[in-house]
Amino acid sequence: MIMDNLDINELPSWKHLKESAARFQQPAYHLKQLLNDESRLKGFSLQSAGFFYDFSRQRVDNESMKLLFALAEDRNITHQFKKMMSGEKINHTEDRAALHTAARSYNDTGIEVDGKNVLAELKSVRTKIKDFSDQVKKGDITGSTGKRFKHLVVIGIGGSYLGTEFVSEALYVDANDDMHIHYLSNVDIHNFGRIVSIIDPETTLWIVISKSYTTAETLANENLARVFMMEKGIDPSKHFITVTAKGSPGDMTSAKDDSSRGILASFHMFDFIGGRYSVSSAVGGVPLSLYLGYDKFERFLKGAEEMDQHAASASPRNNMPLIAALLSVWNNNFLGYPATAIIPYAAPLSKLAPHIQQLNMESNGKSVTIDGTALSEPTGGIIFGEPGTNAQHSFFQLAHQGRPFPIEFIGVISPQYNQFHVYRNGVTNHQELWANLLSQPMALALGKKNAYSAKQFSGNRPSSTMILPDLSPESVGKLLSFYEAKTVFEAFIWGINPFDQFGVELGKQLAKDIRTEMAEKNANKAYSFDTASPIVKHYLKMLSKNEITSVE
Amino acid sequence: MIMDNLDINELPSWKHLKESAARFQQPAYHLKQLLNDESRLKGFSLQSAGFFYDFSRQRVDNESMKLLFALAEDRNITHQFKKMMSGEKINHTEDRAALHTAARSYNDTGIEVDGKNVLAELKSVRTKIKDFSDQVKKGDITGSTGKRFKHLVVIGIGGSYLGTEFVSEALYVDANDDMHIHYLSNVDIHNFGRIVSIIDPETTLWIVISKSYTTAETLANENLARVFMMEKGIDPSKHFITVTAKGSPGDMTSAKDDSSRGILASFHMFDFIGGRYSVSSAVGGVPLSLYLGYDKFERFLKGAEEMDQHAASASPRNNMPLIAALLSVWNNNFLGYPATAIIPYAAPLSKLAPHIQQLNMESNGKSVTIDGTALSEPTGGIIFGEPGTNAQHSFFQLAHQGRPFPIEFIGVISPQYNQFHVYRNGVTNHQELWANLLSQPMALALGKKNAYSAKQFSGNRPSSTMILPDLSPESVGKLLSFYEAKTVFEAFIWGINPFDQFGVELGKQLAKDIRTEMAEKNANKAYSFDTASPIVKHYLKMLSKNEITSVE
Repeated sequence: MIMDNLDINELPSWKHLKESAARFQQPAYHLKQLLNDESRLKGFSLQSAGFFYDFSRQRVDNESMKLLFALAEDRNITHQFKKMMSGEKINHTEDRAALHTAARSYNDTGIEVDGKNVLAELKSVRTKIKDFSDQVKKGDITGSTGKRFKHLVVIGIGGSYLGTEFVSEALYVDANDDMHIHYLSNVDIHNFGRIVSIIDPETTLWIVISKSYTTAETLANENLARVFMMEKGIDPSKHFITVTAKGSPGDMTSAKDDSSRGILASFHMFDFIGGRYSVSSAVGGVPLSLYLGYDKFERFLKGAEEMDQHAASASPRNNMPLIAALLSVWNNNFLGYPATAIIPYAAPLSKLAPHIQQLNMESNGKSVTIDGTALSEPTGGIIFGEPGTNAQHSFFQLAHQGRPFPIEFIGVISPQYNQFHVYRNGVTNHQELWANLLSQPMALALGKKNAYSAKQFSGNRPSSTMILPDLSPESVGKLLSFYEAKTVFEAFIWGINPFDQFGVELGKQLAKDIRTEMAEKNANKAYSFDTASPIVKHYLKMLSKNEITSVE
Repeated sequence: MIMDNLDINELPSWKHLKESAARFQQPAYHLKQLLNDESRLKGFSLQSAGFFYDFSRQRVDNESMKLLFALAEDRNITHQFKKMMSGEKINHTEDRAALHTAARSYNDTGIEVDGKNVLAELKSVRTKIKDFSDQVKKGDITGSTGKRFKHLVVIGIGGSYLGTEFVSEALYVDANDDMHIHYLSNVDIHNFGRIVSIIDPETTLWIVISKSYTTAETLANENLARVFMMEKGIDPSKHFITVTAKGSPGDMTSAKDDSSRGILASFHMFDFIGGRYSVSSAVGGVPLSLYLGYDKFERFLKGAEEMDQHAASASPRNNMPLIAALLSVWNNNFLGYPATAIIPYAAPLSKLAPHIQQLNMESNGKSVTIDGTALSEPTGGIIFGEPGTNAQHSFFQLAHQGRPFPIEFIGVISPQYNQFHVYRNGVTNHQELWANLLSQPMALALGKKNAYSAKQFSGNRPSSTMILPDLSPESVGKLLSFYEAKTVFEAFIWGINPFDQFGVELGKQLAKDIRTEMAEKNANKAYSFDTASPIVKHYLKMLSKNEITSVE
């Protein structure tokens, strides 16, 4: 049976959930009451794939969970997940498969798309990445002046860097000796200017990442970087590699003979893996293998594969990302929370929230179902976050006493640094961190009465807690896969396509018209922006006069 | 007249606004229609204090603005702002003044608090900062081995670092030669471990910032840093300075004789400036003067002072932060948007959103009015953001086609880097950035019909645009003051106290209990956490066993 495109409001399980959710307005369903049950944690937590997932502080009871599992069944979401993994073209608006899980599949079962063996293609790219990164590490491949590469500059935006940045930050301690990684994502000249003030051109390898090789920001930065290298007297063709689709203008085989456009190596990406899901493909694989070593990248993939298997095969009641997705829908559509915070109590996970912000908001910020019907319920929510305890000293005032929002806490048992054995107040820094990780969900859930109203805490503020054993490459891979699976499970429930992103197109079209106005003015000083709309025209005049001017 | 504590729902202007807002559900009030007015920009923009502020793409018309100004008058908010600046104790729950504006007042008019001349006290701290930072720059003050300081490590959390981080990032190009700044905020050992892997202890100056000198995270890190320095054979008393309240345990005059606790210099902060408003006090002044030079810090203060004067003296219809606050209340309470994004098209402003997230969410995430009555309307909202164009390739899908949220766009006319004159598609990188800055608000506002529903844009999504002439210290100071003034104006409208933060206390109390459990276990291996609640106990056992364990 294919996905049921019934309006979600018409589903019996959805209606039951709406009725059931009303109970949670009553004092008897305050988290303080729910947590009186001594076996609460046992009933509302899971241990699987090496992680611990605790939803005991979510505003749910056995009845709501039962109804949520019925919803999952009505929407056939585990079946859809398997279809996705098998290569069916579930990204129907773009007529593409969605095979990010294949990028870390070490299974021998063939997956075919358009008559091609996907796993074989992906494996051959991985082999090429391994060979190239090993040669760079050994010094067999060097820059044009014979010096070893020490600086990697990733030129790419959105899905072409956010996932890689998350992983490279998380595994910073594992980086190869004396190797540094920089992200040139923004077309903003400040991004470029700052990076070139730090790097040494002779030891810099530029990694240009764009599937189509037409992304405006990426190509502007690539061009700037090539001019910069030539001005420094360095042959760009020995310092640029690309990650792009076969046959794109940036693919080595199709690149021009002109050595100023020359490319040292190209690695392929495929249209069955979208940008925001691409960190386990060559998009993440090339920079991460150069930065960490290919072995670490492969360990990261193996971790992701383990969580993929869990998501695909665990029964709903034992499935961590599936339950997380159900709770997300519950909080969004039944309890009415428009935003969620991701708070890792682990500084190396500082780029997790920006990555998941992209992954989830771009995937599920949609207004139509997969059959093109306008949605009757909001989907997607705002995702934001900073590491704890920092967040406690920043925006947690609002979390405790202002507008409530659900929080996903993440903790790590063994830190990457174990050499500092210093105690204060009888505890280490890592224990102090955990004391806070454990206290916050309780304070949010329980609240506290106070005769002085400004010091009153209403409580009943939901959260989940996920515990990782460590920050190994495997654990980071699992964490990535957990959030990818959660995101697509949410979409399957809402009946939307999490793989397209038509919402970014209109801005691009309008930018093109504005760019044309600017180029006209650059070519002809007398040009007065006559075809621009009044507001845009005013700004174009300000920028070209290089000063703030009055509105006429 | 003191502030009117009437329930905001009882105010005539509030009632009129509720009625008036209903109009905006009609198609005739879609932004597409409002923007048909050729004079829209002139009527809905301001040019003042060197900035340009455009609210033409907010969902307001002349009538709603008129009613909002009536609300501002009903709440007497300009008068309250002046009372704040004059030193009245408007932070009544803590019986304190709120004088962040005094920290950048070069006015000679005395401000007295508790019989003390505030301006003279602040001036004497600034003089001390100037002298100290000049001596460090000249090499007259060095580390214990005679080497010049090259690394500044700021130990402080929340308001003790977020504002400084925002400014130091924004003015990165202005940093003193060979001076580096690091932020050790999180108690997480990863934060410490990573910083000590980068710095050279001999050339490192640790700047410990805590008003009370009791902040758990800061003191744990200070202790760790001192042990680290001693292990490296370096006398900490020549490498630690403090910014703290007079007479605190970290104040030099009260510090112990023990050289392991010794302090090179102390700079005072005062209880009339709260943490999140403290970047223009010694909290920002000490690290920023060492990093940028005192002259740059003073230019930053002068910019902030100019915007303070604008906020205090411009009439409501010409007052940028006041109008921004009214629009924030309008979007929050009348149009129902729970979140706002801050999107600077300027990479150096990458830490603006995290700072304003703290400033605004901690100030206005409250549940009671200043007279202790429970609020009948939500106050405060979620603030998040990333620089553009990055954000376009991350979460703007949701902004365009999913759950709408207002956006504050920020642009800069002259970038800090002007040396790269490379064109692509006829434009420079800076022009390409602006093409996007201009296109996004239009795309959001206008939307676009499409027969294919997945490519349809509903439009009517509100935004403001603020233009800065440059990223000079003065402009960065103005930007800070703009957001500080906007935040307190919002609070004055809602009738809440933006200067206390009791919401962070409950978590701290619970953390203390948990820390005691951990310390007990550290001292006695047989201890079994018997006084902890069942859920907390499970986690304490996992951490002490150093592995993920099943729930019994």
